[in-house]
Amino acid sequence: MSFSGVENRLAVMGLQLPDAPRPVGNYRAAVISNELLFISGQLPMSGGELKYRGRVGVELTEAAGGEAAQLAALNVLAQIKAALGGFDRLVSLVRVEGFVSSAPGWTNQPRVLDHASNLFAAVLGERGVHARSAIGTSQLPLNAAVELVVTAAVAAPPAKEQ
Amino acid sequence: MSFSGVENRLAVMGLQLPDAPRPVGNYRAAVISNELLFISGQLPMSGGELKYRGRVGVELTEAAGGEAAQLAALNVLAQIKAALGGFDRLVSLVRVEGFVSSAPGWTNQPRVLDHASNLFAAVLGERGVHARSAIGTSQLPLNAAVELVVTAAVAAPPAKEQ
Amino acid sequence: MSFSGVENRLAVMGLQLPDAPRPVGNYRAAVISNELLFISGQLPMSGGELKYRGRVGVELTEAAGGEAAQLAALNVLAQIKAALGGFDRLVSLVRVEGFVSSAPGWTNQPRVLDHASNLFAAVLGERGVHARSAIGTSQLPLNAAVELVVTAAVAAPPAKEQ
Repeated sequence: MSFSGVENRLAVMGLQLPDAPRPVGNYRAAVISNELLFISGQLPMSGGELKYRGRVGVELTEAAGGEAAQLAALNVLAQIKAALGGFDRLVSLVRVEGFVSSAPGWTNQPRVLDHASNLFAAVLGERGVHARSAIGTSQLPLNAAVELVVTAAVAAPPAKEQ
Repeated sequence: MSFSGVENRLAVMGLQLPDAPRPVGNYRAAVISNELLFISGQLPMSGGELKYRGRVGVELTEAAGGEAAQLAALNVLAQIKAALGGFDRLVSLVRVEGFVSSAPGWTNQPRVLDHASNLFAAVLGERGVHARSAIGTSQLPLNAAVELVVTAAVAAPPAKEQ
Repeated sequence: MSFSGVENRLAVMGLQLPDAPRPVGNYRAAVISNELLFISGQLPMSGGELKYRGRVGVELTEAAGGEAAQLAALNVLAQIKAALGGFDRLVSLVRVEGFVSSAPGWTNQPRVLDHASNLFAAVLGERGVHARSAIGTSQLPLNAAVELVVTAAVAAPPAKEQ
């Protein structure tokens, strides 16, 4: 798999795709059905480690929350690449559900999630458009700061694919 | 766009569609893919303002929570109209995810969300049917009381559409 | 409806399908659209009663949380059977969203949800694969310990079905 346009754009931004994390339980990282790609919830992982723990507004600043959202978005891109063997078959993102571990009374979840949405726009262009929901929650798995759940539209695989 | 049957039924109920709110971040209010319409999370907005803030069971009564759910549902309808240019292409709602900002120990989320489901049934009839999930949460964006995330089935656009 | 392979496998495990719970509000237990089956949020119900209440890590142990997840998964299977008249039309699960009512600081949601994923794998085999998201929350409807929201792929109904 050659370096894609997506990865070139990331490199220009000083970013690179992490290894696509393996599921932390008995499920698949991604499932394709009816030309939709359903990606399991992605956390801010890098090098096999969770990088941002705790609640935004208590253990983490809003700026750190934004970094967590961007890193989770990189993991989403890594899962897309792993599921589709690159980005050619990606038609577009469709839906992003963003869950943010939140301090009581802290209500800027959309601002934090914009760091994910901005990354998708920057590297995927028109293919990065998505509907979004932002939800604050008291607790995420492994004490992650952010979890992103993405659904994307994909093209049917080429007829002669092995 | 002429006044639709949906809007006539709302008028009989003394209700009207708010302006479809613009996204509060870098995403789209709605995305169509594979004949499914994915609508971004809708809050109880009216006239550009969030009308119901806080947790049901603490800052808000259950009755106010129900009003918030109904208003969020009106915003869902406004987004459908904006995305499809009316309601003709709407085949039916499919899925409603309801998040309710909840006091500790308050567990009547379904009762609050019925105010949204009832509105959909009243104005969309058979096209208003949906599967639903009700989730209580400690915090929603902008301190909203309710957030609705709706997926709908839509017909393909007419062949000669500009 | 004869006893299916799915139910035989459950029987071997000493389990049986509960009656598919009726919605607790003005919505449908399941909706089919575009060959996707959207199932309403399922709680750990049995015999018309909610069996596991409270937060994992406070009122419930992690082991009890796992039992709650398995029971909610049985209710998902019951809804699939009710919606499709059996399991023949089920192509595969696609997506499982797991919400776990969680004590502050308790972050093993994936471990609890594996009891649902394991059940799906055991009785559905390859048709049980799914993408998954795990979310901790402060409060679920009726004070349930776990809620599962499942999307599945289904085959078109036979042309001459009555």
